[in-house]
Amino acid sequence: MKALFIGGIKSGKSLLAEEFAIKNSTTKPLYLATTEFIDQEMLQRIKLHKEQRADKFITIEEPLLLTNIITNAKQLVLLECVSMWINNMLYHKHDFHAIEKEMKKVLALDKDIVFVLNDVGSGIIPQNKLAREYIDISGKISQLIAKECDAVFHVIAGIGTKIK
Amino acid sequence: MKALFIGGIKSGKSLLAEEFAIKNSTTKPLYLATTEFIDQEMLQRIKLHKEQRADKFITIEEPLLLTNIITNAKQLVLLECVSMWINNMLYHKHDFHAIEKEMKKVLALDKDIVFVLNDVGSGIIPQNKLAREYIDISGKISQLIAKECDAVFHVIAGIGTKIK
Amino acid sequence: MKALFIGGIKSGKSLLAEEFAIKNSTTKPLYLATTEFIDQEMLQRIKLHKEQRADKFITIEEPLLLTNIITNAKQLVLLECVSMWINNMLYHKHDFHAIEKEMKKVLALDKDIVFVLNDVGSGIIPQNKLAREYIDISGKISQLIAKECDAVFHVIAGIGTKIK
Repeated sequence: MKALFIGGIKSGKSLLAEEFAIKNSTTKPLYLATTEFIDQEMLQRIKLHKEQRADKFITIEEPLLLTNIITNAKQLVLLECVSMWINNMLYHKHDFHAIEKEMKKVLALDKDIVFVLNDVGSGIIPQNKLAREYIDISGKISQLIAKECDAVFHVIAGIGTKIK
Repeated sequence: MKALFIGGIKSGKSLLAEEFAIKNSTTKPLYLATTEFIDQEMLQRIKLHKEQRADKFITIEEPLLLTNIITNAKQLVLLECVSMWINNMLYHKHDFHAIEKEMKKVLALDKDIVFVLNDVGSGIIPQNKLAREYIDISGKISQLIAKECDAVFHVIAGIGTKIK
Repeated sequence: MKALFIGGIKSGKSLLAEEFAIKNSTTKPLYLATTEFIDQEMLQRIKLHKEQRADKFITIEEPLLLTNIITNAKQLVLLECVSMWINNMLYHKHDFHAIEKEMKKVLALDKDIVFVLNDVGSGIIPQNKLAREYIDISGKISQLIAKECDAVFHVIAGIGTKIK
């Protein structure tokens, strides 16, 4: 079983994905945190997230190599989040094709995975070339994931609407 | 009865919210306009809005203190709009906690309220720190409102889809 | 029959619109390409698009004058895309009223048309005045089109949800 929660910033997608992961897992799910770059603002967010998920998850942190961890997972994996992972991959000079290749490997695994992804493409097209490239990659990867998912939820104002 | 209309800029959410307010009110609804900052561009928008709503609403203007007005309202209140109100609160040095507290008071009132809110979180994450903070607050407040609403509509291209 | 596919950048709306156009046409549909400004980045996108649609469409390129072409079309027209056309119109000093007038003419035609449009209004309101104006016009035109369409699809992550 694979599911995707996609929505804007602070749409409430993470909380819904966590609830979904817990409900669809018989054991404590694995929380695969992809966050790598930590400034004061992020630290605050991460702290809040950790408090929110309390003792409901086993947390493991990995910014880049997803396949190995998920291959070895004995339980449902909550991948939080794909957007940060794309960011990390780009920062470490992996291009779109490397990102796509790694994600295809993940999607080919016969595992229960819940994906969380930021919808970043519904604003004005930014003048910044890197931002445009990020939006393109994010859109392509979200299509790739959604295609392989059994369930896709669009989240807005804390409400998840099943669109697949 | 409480309802939320959320959508992007020029998605048509205001018109749908007005129609909904009129349909769900036995008397002329109260149009609570939160706009405070008026430049030439805004004046134009406000003028257009006023023409659109014609004689269907009693208009009252208040940029900050919502609770008192809504408490005293004898009819359905259309709050237009929450996004501008957040903006005003921040400008007058009220932080997120003050904003959240005031909105919780509003939501606790046993009144018919129709909320209108701009979805601002589905574009690329802006580099501007204030913009990021605004998006965060807007997202949290939209979740707070949606949770207490009987009906939530996501508006795009003038079409409102009931998501709750 | 008229249909609108609206979604963010790289949401997959073009591909869904193409599939829809082919499915709803007994003959090879007309692909009305509105792209005018071609830099290296765009050339890349156009090349990819052309490959994707292969031999399934008859392509005609026109950046501004839509009505004549659609009037003379003997088959279903896929208008790809409205957003670029608005962009071209503004660049050639046609204002909102000219854009609206031309689109109303198109919508009044008794023809099968599939419209594709970028949702650009769900990010933070940009500081750039031109960007704000573009969002306004895009929103108004999308409402205009959606109103006259028999079917409207909101596309996210490659999934089209029928909202009308």
